[in-house]
Amino acid sequence: MAGVQMASVRIREAKEGDCGHILRLIRELAEYEKLSDQVKISEEGPCVVGYGLYYFIYSTWKGRNVYLEDIYVMPEYRGQGIGSQIIKKVAQVALNKGCSQFRLAVLDWNKSAMDLYKALGAQDLTETEGWHSFRFEGEVMRELAGK
Amino acid sequence: MAGVQMASVRIREAKEGDCGHILRLIRELAEYEKLSDQVKISEEGPCVVGYGLYYFIYSTWKGRNVYLEDIYVMPEYRGQGIGSQIIKKVAQVALNKGCSQFRLAVLDWNKSAMDLYKALGAQDLTETEGWHSFRFEGEVMRELAGK
Repeated sequence: MAGVQMASVRIREAKEGDCGHILRLIRELAEYEKLSDQVKISEEGPCVVGYGLYYFIYSTWKGRNVYLEDIYVMPEYRGQGIGSQIIKKVAQVALNKGCSQFRLAVLDWNKSAMDLYKALGAQDLTETEGWHSFRFEGEVMRELAGK
Repeated sequence: MAGVQMASVRIREAKEGDCGHILRLIRELAEYEKLSDQVKISEEGPCVVGYGLYYFIYSTWKGRNVYLEDIYVMPEYRGQGIGSQIIKKVAQVALNKGCSQFRLAVLDWNKSAMDLYKALGAQDLTETEGWHSFRFEGEVMRELAGK
């Protein structure tokens, strides 16, 4: 977009004050994934142009690991390498916390994201090892729990 | 197996003293998944016949959720519904902690596990929504982090 200067984008840790921005981006990501009817969390809030949301998980094979739950860049800021910078930042955080890997999930129709992660060196475990993601929820879960 | 009594199996929360047993089962699970060369954690330890290892994760769509990292039952105790009982227990824990869903990952060649989870009501998100699992690790991660 005319006037957007690449040098003005900075990758940093999220702060409490970013909540409104992040929620907006979470909604945009869900919209992009065509699954926005599933977003139920709330708050209010723009000027942050992308985010990566990660947490620590426990792999019984490797010990502590990082999971990148979401990564998103607003459409008008794409193609500037911001996504790659977020991935690099997460790699730094993971290493600094003693984690030997980090995982994330991608939708198969999201070719540009898949290509980016592969170009950066990620392995598609669904393709190479056959991992499928399963989910139990709602009424099914209540029945299982006997509630 | 002759002499195995179904009534003697009890599904309970893991305790600190189970660590040795759980590590053994983690190794058996990795063996079964044909990926045992990837297990790097250590300890020592048999009488626990299965385990489910879960932790809490954060979904930006639903809030707090449960992730079932591992579920395993020793070969000679399979076919007795122990796996289903573990799944039911996890559903109870999730609901009691205010989680609306729980997720897990399964290898596509593990037909019996896939069939069990589907029979219990789980959705295969890789099949229905196209989610692929990606991983960054080792040298790739160090390069990304600039280390």
